[in-house]
Amino acid sequence: MDGHGRDEDKVDNGFNHEEEEHGGRKSSNNGAEYEMSVEQIFEKREVPPWKKQLTMRAFAVSFVLSILFTFIVMKLNLTTGIIPSLNVSAGLLGFFFVKTWTKLLSKSGLLRQPFTRQENTVIQTCVVASSGIAFSGGFGSYLFGMSERVAKQSGDNGGFKNPSLGWIIGFLFVVSFLGLFSVVPLRKIMIIDFKLTYPSGTATAHLINSFHTPQGAKLAKKQVKTLGKFFSFSFLWGFFQWFYTAGDGCGFINFPTFGLKAYENMFFFDFSATYVGVGMICPYIINISVLLGGILSWGLMWPLIENRKGDWFNADLPKKNMHGLQGYQVFIAIALILGDGLYNFVKVFTRTLTGLFYQFRGRQSLPVANQHSSDTSDKLSYDDQRRIQLFLKDQIPTWFSVAGYVTIATISTIVLPFIFPELKWYYVLVIYIFAPTLAFCNAYGTGLTDWSLASTYGKLAIFTIGAWAGPNGGVLAGLIACGVMMNIVSTASDLMQDFKTGYLTLASPRSMFVSQVIGTAMGCIVSPCVFWLFYNAFDDLGLPGSQYAAPFGIVYRNMSVLGVQGFSALPKDCLLLCYVFFGAAILINSIKDMLGKKWGSYIPLPMAMAIPFYLGPYFAIDMCVGSLILFVWEKLNKEKAAAFAPAVASGLICGDGIWTLPSSILALAGVQPPICMKFLSRATNARVDNFLNSKS
Amino acid sequence: MDGHGRDEDKVDNGFNHEEEEHGGRKSSNNGAEYEMSVEQIFEKREVPPWKKQLTMRAFAVSFVLSILFTFIVMKLNLTTGIIPSLNVSAGLLGFFFVKTWTKLLSKSGLLRQPFTRQENTVIQTCVVASSGIAFSGGFGSYLFGMSERVAKQSGDNGGFKNPSLGWIIGFLFVVSFLGLFSVVPLRKIMIIDFKLTYPSGTATAHLINSFHTPQGAKLAKKQVKTLGKFFSFSFLWGFFQWFYTAGDGCGFINFPTFGLKAYENMFFFDFSATYVGVGMICPYIINISVLLGGILSWGLMWPLIENRKGDWFNADLPKKNMHGLQGYQVFIAIALILGDGLYNFVKVFTRTLTGLFYQFRGRQSLPVANQHSSDTSDKLSYDDQRRIQLFLKDQIPTWFSVAGYVTIATISTIVLPFIFPELKWYYVLVIYIFAPTLAFCNAYGTGLTDWSLASTYGKLAIFTIGAWAGPNGGVLAGLIACGVMMNIVSTASDLMQDFKTGYLTLASPRSMFVSQVIGTAMGCIVSPCVFWLFYNAFDDLGLPGSQYAAPFGIVYRNMSVLGVQGFSALPKDCLLLCYVFFGAAILINSIKDMLGKKWGSYIPLPMAMAIPFYLGPYFAIDMCVGSLILFVWEKLNKEKAAAFAPAVASGLICGDGIWTLPSSILALAGVQPPICMKFLSRATNARVDNFLNSKS
Repeated sequence: MDGHGRDEDKVDNGFNHEEEEHGGRKSSNNGAEYEMSVEQIFEKREVPPWKKQLTMRAFAVSFVLSILFTFIVMKLNLTTGIIPSLNVSAGLLGFFFVKTWTKLLSKSGLLRQPFTRQENTVIQTCVVASSGIAFSGGFGSYLFGMSERVAKQSGDNGGFKNPSLGWIIGFLFVVSFLGLFSVVPLRKIMIIDFKLTYPSGTATAHLINSFHTPQGAKLAKKQVKTLGKFFSFSFLWGFFQWFYTAGDGCGFINFPTFGLKAYENMFFFDFSATYVGVGMICPYIINISVLLGGILSWGLMWPLIENRKGDWFNADLPKKNMHGLQGYQVFIAIALILGDGLYNFVKVFTRTLTGLFYQFRGRQSLPVANQHSSDTSDKLSYDDQRRIQLFLKDQIPTWFSVAGYVTIATISTIVLPFIFPELKWYYVLVIYIFAPTLAFCNAYGTGLTDWSLASTYGKLAIFTIGAWAGPNGGVLAGLIACGVMMNIVSTASDLMQDFKTGYLTLASPRSMFVSQVIGTAMGCIVSPCVFWLFYNAFDDLGLPGSQYAAPFGIVYRNMSVLGVQGFSALPKDCLLLCYVFFGAAILINSIKDMLGKKWGSYIPLPMAMAIPFYLGPYFAIDMCVGSLILFVWEKLNKEKAAAFAPAVASGLICGDGIWTLPSSILALAGVQPPICMKFLSRATNARVDNFLNSKS
Repeated sequence: MDGHGRDEDKVDNGFNHEEEEHGGRKSSNNGAEYEMSVEQIFEKREVPPWKKQLTMRAFAVSFVLSILFTFIVMKLNLTTGIIPSLNVSAGLLGFFFVKTWTKLLSKSGLLRQPFTRQENTVIQTCVVASSGIAFSGGFGSYLFGMSERVAKQSGDNGGFKNPSLGWIIGFLFVVSFLGLFSVVPLRKIMIIDFKLTYPSGTATAHLINSFHTPQGAKLAKKQVKTLGKFFSFSFLWGFFQWFYTAGDGCGFINFPTFGLKAYENMFFFDFSATYVGVGMICPYIINISVLLGGILSWGLMWPLIENRKGDWFNADLPKKNMHGLQGYQVFIAIALILGDGLYNFVKVFTRTLTGLFYQFRGRQSLPVANQHSSDTSDKLSYDDQRRIQLFLKDQIPTWFSVAGYVTIATISTIVLPFIFPELKWYYVLVIYIFAPTLAFCNAYGTGLTDWSLASTYGKLAIFTIGAWAGPNGGVLAGLIACGVMMNIVSTASDLMQDFKTGYLTLASPRSMFVSQVIGTAMGCIVSPCVFWLFYNAFDDLGLPGSQYAAPFGIVYRNMSVLGVQGFSALPKDCLLLCYVFFGAAILINSIKDMLGKKWGSYIPLPMAMAIPFYLGPYFAIDMCVGSLILFVWEKLNKEKAAAFAPAVASGLICGDGIWTLPSSILALAGVQPPICMKFLSRATNARVDNFLNSKS
């Protein structure tokens, strides 16, 4: 399987932490209520039975939102691969839709069932499950890495399998449900016995709880209004930009904000509302890391390496050849990513093992978990009592999960080799034997650190299965194995996050499970369709320098090639540089951890630095603009910024994201933009003017 | 003399009214103080003797500000000719500069003299006098209408006189001081006996008074801060835009916001901070009138007339020929302007005469004046007593004014024919005999209605002197006569406004007079120099379609041609259309007046509608954007909008205006912008891409 989604996970991680902070601030706004315990406030509100939590309207809203978020995630997949956590948006928008709906109904007197926070949690869970497939489906990474287009860029002879709607849906259906069944039996141990934190899940629960308290709803309404405003703005801005993009190099996305020279080195502000929003959600250190990485690579290293043209590599090579400059770009990025990944894998795995060791020694929770956990007293608070009572009320029998896992694994083992002849059935079997353990590890690690290592496990699969399969079909086998592994471990940790959210909002585990199953099924159909739309609408999808470059496709494929073929194909000194950056990633991480929380947070993240190595730093500039806006806003009014920045950011991201829907439909319908906004140097402009005058 | 500045006056008028409103709102914010009478609040503050009001620092600041405002006015002159009232900005910035200065000095213990409102009034007066020359000097109208460039466009054979620094300064010095002397003896009658309102002067006085009360200063500081912010933004925006303007048709000023088809018909948003600011200061009705005029002309009439090409006019004519489409554009605009001007001249003149009639019948003030006047009680309030006492303390002897007028008129009569051989000495003499009466009329009319008719008097001079001089040099004689007349009547009304401001801020009439003399002298040097900078920096200045098209140059010249040669040169049916629009202007004005204040304010102003006839509606769109911003702001927070909108607008106007200083210096130094932001249709773009690929 692939080795690169890890990066995205890690960044996602950063987001989650941030989100947790927001959640934390938010709950502290409502501090007064929390003092008297959340569940006391909600005491008078009845908790509906689990079947009543699963309403038709909830799934209707989930379906609409999952299409929205799939578009957004897909766009991000195919542009830079940086995907912020959309849990907050999902919670907000879910609340907004159903609230509007119920309000309309209650005015007409038709309302049968009030809108509860349990229902809200169900929506949020379903949307996250569905849009999660857009990430773990690997449309920007392993899955697209198998295509002919990427194979040609990579220049290896490992074969290819072009995307096609049929096999993608089939593939997703047979691999995506395993994760759910693999961790369901462990939910009581994780949530109640181990008291794991799951920061993202906790933050989302706080948000949903705050929405459903009277004051919270007021704030939520304001937030939704803000979100709506920026959503519209961002959508219209995307629409406006579209008109000026007739032809390559046209439009705002090619605006040489800092001059043409800087533009050639990818330093420009591309007016992307999405990445400004992403920058507002990401912690400052992520944005600064990305920018630093961009300056280091495109500002320093690439120009220096370019100067060695003819010496270090053949000067006649086309610009986008793996044996030339691009080889350095891709492989140094991989080295950084792998170094960072290895370090964090060892770290989290060690903590997982020591954590388990402490747990089984009989202590109720390990020191680290204690720090996070809000309820450390031995006698249970009222909140805990009530939550545990409801969490344990609706059981999911263990035989059900085991039977489900075995059945789906069997089907999957039989079906997958038919779809991918390179993937032998015994590879699949081996993966499925180890997968539950890894899924548990990942769910446990996420509970401790909020850090899902899904793509690191995927990379593990790439290298092991790729090496096992060898030169004959090993490249493809590795990529698919990555997909299989990633889907399992990623859904496992997602589900456990949702169980935590459900625990804190008194939603039934059963309704959580059903919602996640339905959401996953939605995702298995919606994501491939959305990808298919992109794939057909944008002919240059996946080509470097295009609007949808899908940069991780080539990165993942090259990891697989590296696993199978070794380092022989790299240009001169590239391997040395790779070692240096691999070591640097580990070193930087160690320093970060040694300095502790306070000073360590000023050390950049190697993983975030790696992203612009291949893509160029333009999106880093967008993100830093977002950071700057947030920074100024916080200086002016910290309270307001904390309450509304996520809404503004979500609005910017969602509006731009949903614009890609009409934009790809327009492209499919053959409607081309009418105008090209072109940027020419003065000299070129003079020539063009001469040319145009002489012809007209 | 010319016939077109009247428009500008009228618009200026609109601004003044608006400004008065702002002033009004502002003073009502401080309502609590005004209840106990302004002068009681200021009682403890000593009024310095008149010589002490005229400080060096005041004139240093005035000089800096007058350069700033001259740039702004000049830019506006040369782009659209719409000039908003800058009195508020002058007051604000004057306050800010001297306050900062005195604060610094008082901290270092060197402050000898505190900053008084009298000094503030002196600065404001000086700046307004100086930048007034930039308007009444006719650099965008009559003076530039004499140049070869405009003569060629007009196609008449009336001769030309190209601008040159020497004769412009000389001309301004011999004509600009007459207005001052002509009305000085009448100040007591106008201000104290007639109690004329002078809305602009009153508004400025309120502003200055509010600045110098402790709470007022607080508000002023906030306003200055806002102004500073938008000043910087607007300046940087101008700077940023500059980089993308290598070549014709490049940059944001050519942004086809509504598509290329609309762009061809001049409908686009040109991202001009200046006109967005102007739109925020102008009353809504002005902006809507301009937009309506634009839609009527460029959206409807010109495309229809263009279709008659070959029938109504020769199809082979170049696009910018007076016998083709441009003839319709210019002369229909002139017809509207003259119709509106005639109507308002008759109206204001009638009111002036009836007003005088009532005054001399012994009534203290006429009914109309009563409406405006705030002090109608017969026994004088404390404020009035104190103001009158100080206003009458420092006298300017009548013999001084008479001697001054006669001396300067004599010099002028001798000198002018040397500069302009077409202008015989007896024309000048005749103008100077009638001028004091007209100056008095204008000052009185302005006092009643805030409506300076300077350019209407100028147009009167164009037609009378032009016709008198006849075909031999009559065109030029008319234009210069317009200048002489305009300078006198315009400065006369300005000075009287300032006397009113001085009266209300307890500034001495003597210091007002001296300040105006110094300001005028500054203006006579600064304005020609700034114009000279523009003229040399931008080679295409005055050419249609260029950045500085100076549209009124050709309009004024054609009025003069019309006066001398008659209607023979007009293209087919143009005269008929002119009659229709002339009549329409009078009709619309009559309806406006008949409907009364409430409903009449919804009727568009013909004069404002005429401006885009020649230029195109793009700046109307800018102005409407400004209106829209103000409108939304007022909906959100009326108080805040009232207090800060003028500051925001001034900031936008000033920042963009001052950017033209470095921009013209760059142009003079031969530094050209590096990038062209070009807008091409999809088809053209494909051709250009082919061309560029084949060459590279």
